[in-house]
Amino acid sequence: IAKEVAKLLEMKAQLGEDEGKHKFVLKTPKGTRDYGPKQMAIRERAFSAIISCFKRHGAEVIDTPVFELKETLTGKYGEDSKLIYDLKDQGGELLSLRYDLTVPFARYLAMNKITNIKRYHIAKVYRRDNPAMTRGRYREFYQCDFDIAGQFDPMIPDAECLKIVHEILSDLQLGDFVIKVNDRRILDGMFAVCGVPDSKFRTICSSVDKLDKVPWEEVRSEMVGEKGLSPEAADHIGEYVQLHGGLDLIERLLQDPKLSQNKLAKEGLGDMKLLFEYLTLFGITGKISFHLSLAPRLDYYTGVIFEAVLLHQENEHVEEPVSVGSVAGGGRYDGLVGMFDPKGRKVPCVGVSIGIERIFSILEQRLEASEEKIRTTETQVLVASAQKKLLEERLKLISELWDAGIKAEMLYKKNPKLLNQLQYCEDTGIPLVAIVGEQELKDGVVKLRTVATREEVNVRRESLVEEIRIRTSQ
Amino acid sequence: IAKEVAKLLEMKAQLGEDEGKHKFVLKTPKGTRDYGPKQMAIRERAFSAIISCFKRHGAEVIDTPVFELKETLTGKYGEDSKLIYDLKDQGGELLSLRYDLTVPFARYLAMNKITNIKRYHIAKVYRRDNPAMTRGRYREFYQCDFDIAGQFDPMIPDAECLKIVHEILSDLQLGDFVIKVNDRRILDGMFAVCGVPDSKFRTICSSVDKLDKVPWEEVRSEMVGEKGLSPEAADHIGEYVQLHGGLDLIERLLQDPKLSQNKLAKEGLGDMKLLFEYLTLFGITGKISFHLSLAPRLDYYTGVIFEAVLLHQENEHVEEPVSVGSVAGGGRYDGLVGMFDPKGRKVPCVGVSIGIERIFSILEQRLEASEEKIRTTETQVLVASAQKKLLEERLKLISELWDAGIKAEMLYKKNPKLLNQLQYCEDTGIPLVAIVGEQELKDGVVKLRTVATREEVNVRRESLVEEIRIRTSQ
Repeated sequence: IAKEVAKLLEMKAQLGEDEGKHKFVLKTPKGTRDYGPKQMAIRERAFSAIISCFKRHGAEVIDTPVFELKETLTGKYGEDSKLIYDLKDQGGELLSLRYDLTVPFARYLAMNKITNIKRYHIAKVYRRDNPAMTRGRYREFYQCDFDIAGQFDPMIPDAECLKIVHEILSDLQLGDFVIKVNDRRILDGMFAVCGVPDSKFRTICSSVDKLDKVPWEEVRSEMVGEKGLSPEAADHIGEYVQLHGGLDLIERLLQDPKLSQNKLAKEGLGDMKLLFEYLTLFGITGKISFHLSLAPRLDYYTGVIFEAVLLHQENEHVEEPVSVGSVAGGGRYDGLVGMFDPKGRKVPCVGVSIGIERIFSILEQRLEASEEKIRTTETQVLVASAQKKLLEERLKLISELWDAGIKAEMLYKKNPKLLNQLQYCEDTGIPLVAIVGEQELKDGVVKLRTVATREEVNVRRESLVEEIRIRTSQ
Repeated sequence: IAKEVAKLLEMKAQLGEDEGKHKFVLKTPKGTRDYGPKQMAIRERAFSAIISCFKRHGAEVIDTPVFELKETLTGKYGEDSKLIYDLKDQGGELLSLRYDLTVPFARYLAMNKITNIKRYHIAKVYRRDNPAMTRGRYREFYQCDFDIAGQFDPMIPDAECLKIVHEILSDLQLGDFVIKVNDRRILDGMFAVCGVPDSKFRTICSSVDKLDKVPWEEVRSEMVGEKGLSPEAADHIGEYVQLHGGLDLIERLLQDPKLSQNKLAKEGLGDMKLLFEYLTLFGITGKISFHLSLAPRLDYYTGVIFEAVLLHQENEHVEEPVSVGSVAGGGRYDGLVGMFDPKGRKVPCVGVSIGIERIFSILEQRLEASEEKIRTTETQVLVASAQKKLLEERLKLISELWDAGIKAEMLYKKNPKLLNQLQYCEDTGIPLVAIVGEQELKDGVVKLRTVATREEVNVRRESLVEEIRIRTSQ
């Protein structure tokens, strides 16, 4: 019997193996994707616009590890903590993948006792969220963060963050956009004067946040029905959160008999006024809207918050532009660094994060719709031969070109056909072909062909590098 | 009693909390590090040299997720699999952090049915190894990979990979180096003719690999003592693995009565000869050494393997240069893509990986030893004021400069002292100061100061951008 059992077990094991092989799935993990060469070319274009802007504003750059001690991330994200990826306990420290770049930045500042820095950081972050890949929502995605840390005069760095968002969105030509601005202190003050109990601030905040997607009536019924707020308080909130505007609205609210009595709200409104004055000097108030319904998305924001959304005219006959979603956000977080400092020393910070994945999605769709052919290499010249047995000559020539800094390729064939070599240039956009042949070798020249015009000239070998440079410099 | 217990438990809980707070460690995970602005500046320099080289050779760029399905990595790294970081099972797929960029590349090719590509990929990989951070060995570290996939004529892409290593190491000026080359087929053939049983190939291979660190006598006693190889076989191996040289050695071994009888060895030696012929055309054989003791570090290599090591004259009086370790490595892996293809279709590949962390370590140490002050921003001009109450004027001017593409900063103070503003330029290397003052405003000019020379000139406001461009262009 034992023998039979062993036999059966063996058979079963074999079956299991076969099954295993069969089930093997060739894919990237859920919510992630590869970037192929074309997507990378688009990505590099967007990154380059963003990095230029960050550098224009004098930012340094830092990088931190992709994972942090688990306890570094604990207690920083409220409800969203459940979306954090943990690493398996394989002995040693408990680790988690970073959820954003802000908490690692704060940890970096506290750890290195830095009280003053302006830095950017472009890296991937990880969230176990429900992916919606067509809309650019992934589980692994890039963030492009710019932050200013330090004790400064009010709203000057905050205004610069908004200027940066304005510059980047304009530069990328994504279409019309608006940057909504609010302040946690204004929201909290408003809730207080409307009679919301302290314990309900957070949950009412998240209801208010839905106002950009659902009408007020629905939000109100959630507040009263699900969250147990009094109808009077809800109506009172309704009067405020449907407001949006500019300096005039701020002035009006500063005169509001109830709000102006609340210390927090008054502080927030005062700073908002200052912010708008600075934004006027920057000439960008046309795209900025003070939005009382904008709620802080993350626990750690303490002051100004903002979010940029693209306005998209779905259809020319539609009057109201439809919001296609947030492409940048940020705000002030004055308490976060103090959470890491052993003595609780605070470093005030304000920053912005560009939601680059949505921007990629838009740029990708746009490129697909257009006729533009995007090049994925920078090769200037293909080293080719017209006859057989010239591999050695091609290797010698291409080596000379590489050593002179010319971007050059050749086909990895001993005897490629000239037609195939020319076709390769057509396919990949290589503008020039340097052709070696028996006669050219004897004459000490190389035949240089311009792919687009099919024009060919003999160039002396010693002038080839210079000639290629001239013909490929714009 | 119950009450007392509850009280005690509460006290204990509080104590526990305090302890917890106390124990909180402010650090990055073991084997990882932050890159501050200075380190980033060095890193960017090295990356830029490497990327230029990859682009010069016509490579496209791709990116893959930081984690893969666990089964994607299973069975690819042999012994080293234990060093893979797994993610915690939080429901859903089982994931692991990538261990290198080669296996994800192979998965990408198979998944997208790509049979022909030349690509680079620069990204972090993860290994739960014993870190040795001063020597540039981390648990999170960058790899810079260049690979050529496709069915081509023998050794042409392989030669290009070695040319690339040669170009990069020369360009980075890391000092003298040698690129050791061998072929798995030559090793396997050699083991066979020396009488090593098939089952012992791997383990004897790893003994041979130690020859660059310990003398032959030790390696031999490991083979015979620990690994149970016959003394005759070991001695026979010893005759081969201590050899290194160039074309002459290859020719000699091709005549070797035993090796030349072995099909694998003969194939490998034939290709090695071809490789050296191509490298001669590239003019780089001076730095290439055919090393019979070089063993494949990873399971998936099938043909040519290579490793670049820096030679470092510890001390001018020492005659033999001391190897400071590997800075690049790679080889041919013709079977890896087939492991992912449902039908086992093979895509031959050869590639190189630059060990950039060691290179960073060297560049960092060199910079620290030198007097060179490295700039961490690119700011061209500081917008400053000489008197109080000029914040608005500074904001207006800096906004104009940003919009014109000038890299500009200002201090985030309402009324900064001129001395502090000038000091900031000295500290951060900003070359120019644009000073606004009452008089300048009236005259429609800005005072432009060159920090290095302290020279000041009044520039008309409308010429300022042009003037800054001229003064900061090299």
